[in-house]
Amino acid sequence: MLDQDLKNKLVAAVGADGFQDQPEVLYSFSYDAHFEESRPDAVVFPESTTEVSAVLGLADQAGIPVTARGSGTSICGAPIPKQQGIVLAMTKMNRILEVSPRDRCVRVQPGVVNQDLQTELAGHGFFYPPDPASLSVSTIGGNLAQNAGGPRGLKYGVTKDYIMGLEVVLASGRIIRFGSKNVKDVTGYNFAPLFCGSEGTLGIVTEAILRVVPLPEARRTVMATYQDLADTANTVAEVIASGIVPVAMELMDKFVINAVEDAAGLGLPRQAEGLLLIEVDGVEEAVEKEMARIAEKARENGATNIKEARTREEQDDLWRGRRSAYGVMARMAPNCIVEDATVPVSRVPEMIEGMREIFVRHGLRVGILAHAGDGNMHPLISTDVRDKEEWQRVEKAIREVFELAVRLEGTLSGEHGIGLAKSEFLSMFLDQATLETTRDIKRALDPNNILNPGKFC
Amino acid sequence: MLDQDLKNKLVAAVGADGFQDQPEVLYSFSYDAHFEESRPDAVVFPESTTEVSAVLGLADQAGIPVTARGSGTSICGAPIPKQQGIVLAMTKMNRILEVSPRDRCVRVQPGVVNQDLQTELAGHGFFYPPDPASLSVSTIGGNLAQNAGGPRGLKYGVTKDYIMGLEVVLASGRIIRFGSKNVKDVTGYNFAPLFCGSEGTLGIVTEAILRVVPLPEARRTVMATYQDLADTANTVAEVIASGIVPVAMELMDKFVINAVEDAAGLGLPRQAEGLLLIEVDGVEEAVEKEMARIAEKARENGATNIKEARTREEQDDLWRGRRSAYGVMARMAPNCIVEDATVPVSRVPEMIEGMREIFVRHGLRVGILAHAGDGNMHPLISTDVRDKEEWQRVEKAIREVFELAVRLEGTLSGEHGIGLAKSEFLSMFLDQATLETTRDIKRALDPNNILNPGKFC
Repeated sequence: MLDQDLKNKLVAAVGADGFQDQPEVLYSFSYDAHFEESRPDAVVFPESTTEVSAVLGLADQAGIPVTARGSGTSICGAPIPKQQGIVLAMTKMNRILEVSPRDRCVRVQPGVVNQDLQTELAGHGFFYPPDPASLSVSTIGGNLAQNAGGPRGLKYGVTKDYIMGLEVVLASGRIIRFGSKNVKDVTGYNFAPLFCGSEGTLGIVTEAILRVVPLPEARRTVMATYQDLADTANTVAEVIASGIVPVAMELMDKFVINAVEDAAGLGLPRQAEGLLLIEVDGVEEAVEKEMARIAEKARENGATNIKEARTREEQDDLWRGRRSAYGVMARMAPNCIVEDATVPVSRVPEMIEGMREIFVRHGLRVGILAHAGDGNMHPLISTDVRDKEEWQRVEKAIREVFELAVRLEGTLSGEHGIGLAKSEFLSMFLDQATLETTRDIKRALDPNNILNPGKFC
Repeated sequence: MLDQDLKNKLVAAVGADGFQDQPEVLYSFSYDAHFEESRPDAVVFPESTTEVSAVLGLADQAGIPVTARGSGTSICGAPIPKQQGIVLAMTKMNRILEVSPRDRCVRVQPGVVNQDLQTELAGHGFFYPPDPASLSVSTIGGNLAQNAGGPRGLKYGVTKDYIMGLEVVLASGRIIRFGSKNVKDVTGYNFAPLFCGSEGTLGIVTEAILRVVPLPEARRTVMATYQDLADTANTVAEVIASGIVPVAMELMDKFVINAVEDAAGLGLPRQAEGLLLIEVDGVEEAVEKEMARIAEKARENGATNIKEARTREEQDDLWRGRRSAYGVMARMAPNCIVEDATVPVSRVPEMIEGMREIFVRHGLRVGILAHAGDGNMHPLISTDVRDKEEWQRVEKAIREVFELAVRLEGTLSGEHGIGLAKSEFLSMFLDQATLETTRDIKRALDPNNILNPGKFC
């Protein structure tokens, strides 16, 4: 509970419209797409960096937790205010401040929705590569907090690879700025990537300069289908080893194919054991050549059917199928747990084989979906968290998947984050000295531990 | 001076061969390619992470400064042991530990020379994009400490864009490890880029996992010459604005062209006011098409001659001319100061025009060289630091160049670093709050301020 004095000061800082503590509002901000909940004491809607600074300064003095939030699409519980306090809803700071095609960058506020940025950029012949499945609703601020990836990560990298500069408000209310519109910039410590992926535990981003990329002149998408899931996985490892850099190599197993087909009726091959959606982009002639080489690799690895989407509409259909998978699976049962353990791409075949064995052994209903080209697995576990016996099996299986990832030099999370969902597993992947250093950095930037406390450390 | 007890302990840690304090050795490690000097008390040559940890632990307890060093090619004084103490020479830790073409990464020790890594990788059909002019001698550790760039920065980015994981020894001797061979990895704070470019002030890198890239199947280099330097600069801004992404766009003015020609006799056009060396790479057909569009842009902007290097030998000749420029200029007078203020690419024409005006007004002999495609200027000032009157004019001119860079949204250093050369100018580019945060981070990781003290903060 916030005391009346602090409430008055917060209202003075952000205006009466900017402060809300009605129960229905508090409830709305108590959860994300993960399954836990924790109700905040107030929700504050800042409209400027100055307001963010004022709110943090007040909270820091009072020792009240502050958890920043964009659209709340996180599936790891990152924006859930675990220790109550204030939720800082950044959605009103949603302006695209500057588009500079000549310098290949944009300057944006954190509340800008990823898709709105894409739409604006397309008008200038550019795009912003990070494309999480949530892009039509998730914000740039949320994407930065989680270091969001997406299917294009294979060729284009992830959010951290596109940050040129940030304005950040620290816990004390101090406003810092680093980086610039310069492609090369070694003036000062390279702070930006530290804040990216820190889930709002180190500072609140209030402005970002992001690198953008010219739209490629051509794009090709093919769908390859297989009678054997191992062949599907082998194709991925072999295409990458051959030196080709596709934009995306998305893998679905039979369970996912059929779930998508039931819901969307796109004409996907229901009998196939595995499916790859492969995309390349670039100069017309290069794309043509790369696609021919990829098709050859797919055939060599046992693809029974290879279908190219020639028109934009056909491409969009294929991608709609892929993007709908999570939603479709989520409707099959009360809960759909998406894991995202990730392995080096050469270990993808072992990881997929190993995950299948684990899920079958625990008798779970699981569809395997993966950004396979960058080793990022997304098994979708269809379950009901209220069914205690099944939930125990889910938890056991997930721990075994992480143990498998450790053995294969993989990582706990490729792009979904740590949040509430995975903090207990951090010590499987980071040693004690590294975790201590994490806490040292946290303490240096947030000595009173008000920023999203209880996460990450 | 180190006391005998500490010396004994250091010898016990690294062996008798690993500890040197003869005057001639101390002198050799007292300078880099910048013009200041400061003699250390001892030079230590560790051969393993354990030894680095032991040395730092001892130095930290004794409060003795430790400055890490690779090949000492820095031109900003970064590895000069300003406050004496121990120089940690990392050159014996020079093993390539693992090459994984299938996972597109390598694992190396910091003393590996950049060129040795390139040679090893070429055998696997790969390369490591960061290519500072010093690559034939500079080490990966030095490249990491300085966040080294190079001509290819335009298309391929800089060192920070290739770090997947690091092992770092902190001041206390604590060994931390973060990152992995996974393209996507959000497990824990994104520490790696913080250490990159921190010039050995935050920790000592003892192992790095670096991303590598398949060698492109084709490469084209053209040389365009101009009667007007402004046309040269305009071509750069217009090619970038058109959406093409060349590997490099290197600019030279008449002064540099003639200096290179005097020394190397490559047949460069001595009458030209400006020259651009432009390279593209990729799939054969794409490269052909892009080069045609670049040539068209060059002609539209007044290029009087465009010459394509068709063979590998012709390409190497052009690049040899470019790479020799610093050495050639350095031989013309006792000192050659290379500046590297950087601006967003759209401001390159204003920056070049403005720099010319400044250097002419101060009556200095300056050649303008630039990685122009990424806005990274390298004016070469031929001078003699013992000539006090001229040196004052040099210092005034440099300050004016930085003031110009500030006005053009530029940065103090694109790739050469801060070191001793530029620390006094940091506050022109970073505000007080950001500098305070820099010191907070430094204190969190190095509370006794033993790592390269007197730099950066």
